[in-house]
Amino acid sequence: MKKDFIDTNDFTKEELLDIAQLSLAIKKAINNGYYPPLMKNKNLGMIFQQSSTRTRVSFETAMAQMGGHAQYLGPGMIQLGGHETIGDTGKVLSKLLDVVMARVIEHKTVVELADAASIPVINGMSDYNHPTQEIGDLCTILENLPAGKKLEDCKVVFVGDGTQVCASLGFICTKMGMHFVHYGPKDNQLLEVHKKIMEENCKVSGGTWEVTDDRESVHGADFIYTDVWYGLYENETPKEIRVKQFEGYQVNRDLMQLGNIGCKFMHCLPCTRGEDVTDEVADSAASLCWEEAGNRLTAMRGLLVYFTRHFKKEPTELQIAAAKEELDSFLAERIDK
Amino acid sequence: MKKDFIDTNDFTKEELLDIAQLSLAIKKAINNGYYPPLMKNKNLGMIFQQSSTRTRVSFETAMAQMGGHAQYLGPGMIQLGGHETIGDTGKVLSKLLDVVMARVIEHKTVVELADAASIPVINGMSDYNHPTQEIGDLCTILENLPAGKKLEDCKVVFVGDGTQVCASLGFICTKMGMHFVHYGPKDNQLLEVHKKIMEENCKVSGGTWEVTDDRESVHGADFIYTDVWYGLYENETPKEIRVKQFEGYQVNRDLMQLGNIGCKFMHCLPCTRGEDVTDEVADSAASLCWEEAGNRLTAMRGLLVYFTRHFKKEPTELQIAAAKEELDSFLAERIDK
Amino acid sequence: MKKDFIDTNDFTKEELLDIAQLSLAIKKAINNGYYPPLMKNKNLGMIFQQSSTRTRVSFETAMAQMGGHAQYLGPGMIQLGGHETIGDTGKVLSKLLDVVMARVIEHKTVVELADAASIPVINGMSDYNHPTQEIGDLCTILENLPAGKKLEDCKVVFVGDGTQVCASLGFICTKMGMHFVHYGPKDNQLLEVHKKIMEENCKVSGGTWEVTDDRESVHGADFIYTDVWYGLYENETPKEIRVKQFEGYQVNRDLMQLGNIGCKFMHCLPCTRGEDVTDEVADSAASLCWEEAGNRLTAMRGLLVYFTRHFKKEPTELQIAAAKEELDSFLAERIDK
Repeated sequence: MKKDFIDTNDFTKEELLDIAQLSLAIKKAINNGYYPPLMKNKNLGMIFQQSSTRTRVSFETAMAQMGGHAQYLGPGMIQLGGHETIGDTGKVLSKLLDVVMARVIEHKTVVELADAASIPVINGMSDYNHPTQEIGDLCTILENLPAGKKLEDCKVVFVGDGTQVCASLGFICTKMGMHFVHYGPKDNQLLEVHKKIMEENCKVSGGTWEVTDDRESVHGADFIYTDVWYGLYENETPKEIRVKQFEGYQVNRDLMQLGNIGCKFMHCLPCTRGEDVTDEVADSAASLCWEEAGNRLTAMRGLLVYFTRHFKKEPTELQIAAAKEELDSFLAERIDK
Repeated sequence: MKKDFIDTNDFTKEELLDIAQLSLAIKKAINNGYYPPLMKNKNLGMIFQQSSTRTRVSFETAMAQMGGHAQYLGPGMIQLGGHETIGDTGKVLSKLLDVVMARVIEHKTVVELADAASIPVINGMSDYNHPTQEIGDLCTILENLPAGKKLEDCKVVFVGDGTQVCASLGFICTKMGMHFVHYGPKDNQLLEVHKKIMEENCKVSGGTWEVTDDRESVHGADFIYTDVWYGLYENETPKEIRVKQFEGYQVNRDLMQLGNIGCKFMHCLPCTRGEDVTDEVADSAASLCWEEAGNRLTAMRGLLVYFTRHFKKEPTELQIAAAKEELDSFLAERIDK
Repeated sequence: MKKDFIDTNDFTKEELLDIAQLSLAIKKAINNGYYPPLMKNKNLGMIFQQSSTRTRVSFETAMAQMGGHAQYLGPGMIQLGGHETIGDTGKVLSKLLDVVMARVIEHKTVVELADAASIPVINGMSDYNHPTQEIGDLCTILENLPAGKKLEDCKVVFVGDGTQVCASLGFICTKMGMHFVHYGPKDNQLLEVHKKIMEENCKVSGGTWEVTDDRESVHGADFIYTDVWYGLYENETPKEIRVKQFEGYQVNRDLMQLGNIGCKFMHCLPCTRGEDVTDEVADSAASLCWEEAGNRLTAMRGLLVYFTRHFKKEPTELQIAAAKEELDSFLAERIDK
């Protein structure tokens, strides 16, 4: 079993569905009032090279709800690749924590961290992909399948910039055997590296993929997904130019009407209202974007349990009782004397 | 029942006394060794647009002592009104947390956040008011009533600048039917907006209020309260000028002697020793300022319990047991296979 | 009993061994699956004037593993000696927390904080010493004594700059009756103030100390310890000059071979690979530096328990039950009415 969750492409469709179904099972338990202590006594280190609302709060809430604790290691709070190599930080954190998540500027940082660490490492987003978002979105899609359709019958269209969220959506959809379209301007489309992976995924899963600037491709969408148009990259072209590049790619009433009847709107958030999406769509009954935000928490709970549960053998009640007795004796005889 | 705690003027005298008495009851329980698990499984988001010692530490300790968890979302850690509208952040956090507190630069930010959020929002201080301080101070006054006096018999004099702490003290005193004086230089007195609210409060409560630069107004004070003279505002006039403006408003032995025998000193802290208050007064037996700091924690516990307790119906033991059984089965059959 | 842990020189050899053995006893319990709830309901404030990986994460994990909670009060998050005196901050935090640790720029800050605070204060490193590192290193040495040797038989050589870690190692070794050498260039050796303390320690313990630039002094070492060469001081001389100063003081295969057969390598980390230590040594079987990192956590657990356990008398079960009943009645009658 894989120690780390770096890229959904490292996993089979079945494994990913296990993670999603585990996430949904825990969500159901908590909604019914049972907070499972599945992370009891466990500490998560949350490394953020960039600030974050959703990923950070959902990881921290997930740990607390399941009896564990999450430590926020924000930008500048610890060194990562400064005085100390990333590998050495990974080795040290493995001695002090039970599991680590990292939101990194460069994908290779989280890969290097996972290689050096002896504890599970979860990729909380890199410049390459956003796999925890994928699990959350898979949960949201599973909860909102069009009537009579299976996952494999659904068409998902990502509109706009070929961001890491777009790539990740392509990965998970093709992994699941769904039908994925990236509809975006020629200069902002997914790259060969992404197409190759989607192609391989489809060979196994029976899904399909398309990357195009043809608006016709939106027809028949069950889910239309978008992301912001700017503010994600170092040294990016000025905002005004980027807004111009995506003219016509706004998700509005017109675009939504190209989809199937009952087509749903998705967004990883934050959105820029009036640019990548209109208020009308974001706040409509077809909008799943708030549910998606809630399912970030759903996904984090499932991922944390999945990757720590098999990692370490739990001691027996008898072993624990013996350990308690030994410590109690020590305290009574040596410390409380 | 009101979902949010934004302004004590939204509440009746009886409701505010309920909150204060609840705070004192929890304080007593904890002082006697019982830590009530009233926030168990609950997550508080603490949004700080400015740094803070007392408010932050007291909220975080309050949650931990009552079995919950507080997440520090400090300046720059999450966006609030940047890429994402405040309303959208409120909607998202409502999916990931159980209750939110916010210390904001502009009062309208916490109002907007509360309007958008579907979970309780607590105002942790704005440029307009400081209502958690009010509850803490009410607790301190209740614990230190002059012999033979009821709340309604007490005179409270705030000396110095008409800060949000001064306004808040005026609000809570007039709400409770006490006798409130703001003794400060003409250019730094409470405004019409404050006077109007205090007047309305007094009509209901039978209290009185006065805003004046007449030193005689300090006579008969049971509690003398002050705050710092500078460092609170954007683009404020230079420190030297502000110190000059408040000459004669220092709380020292002379000023304390204008109050009643046994008159107590209060300060929200931090203080600037030698300016707004002398060492002699701050460290005297008449000083309640350290107790006040402790009662910030007292107030946070009461507020957190009050605003979450009625918000969500707790599931029954049976519902929880059924949810546990279902999740345990899922884990055994699908994950631990 | 001392309230605070500021300097190991304030304690007897027996007290320090108690702390180390307590740390190792808790480590054993946890390794065997028993997480002792010895910090239950307790809140630790972690004040950091500088960022830190090991000290911060190990304190936070220690609290969580033992049922308590740690609050990260990082650089800029709270004022320490700004608007408010350090003493006043100490008084206020004593009302809101159960124990405080502080990593400070100037040693006098943690001393002043401890003097003002009425709760235990733990020194998490200053410019003068690093006593939590000392307890962790003592644990590591106790776990790795050369076959047939007692603590008092061991020789420990610190190579390189006379940092606060070097001074601290000298303190704990001479306290324990071990044989300590600082082998470093003349301009970077421990000072008279350190030598005087080591001399006093040795008078009591029977240990020895030496400060020298003679490479022969490494002969017979059981443990060779080093630290980085630069990046620790304000306004330090340029990196290139400092690297030149320590030429010949790199811990490499040659230097390790001067020690006893089976000589171990130690480093407080982070290290600068290729400068203060070679990869070959840091990653060798003789390297204890990763164990040392893990024993930071070991030490924090022991220190937290030791300094809080005797500080406050625990209430009886009967007192707790009475307090619970009183609060439950209040809630039922006044709040849930």
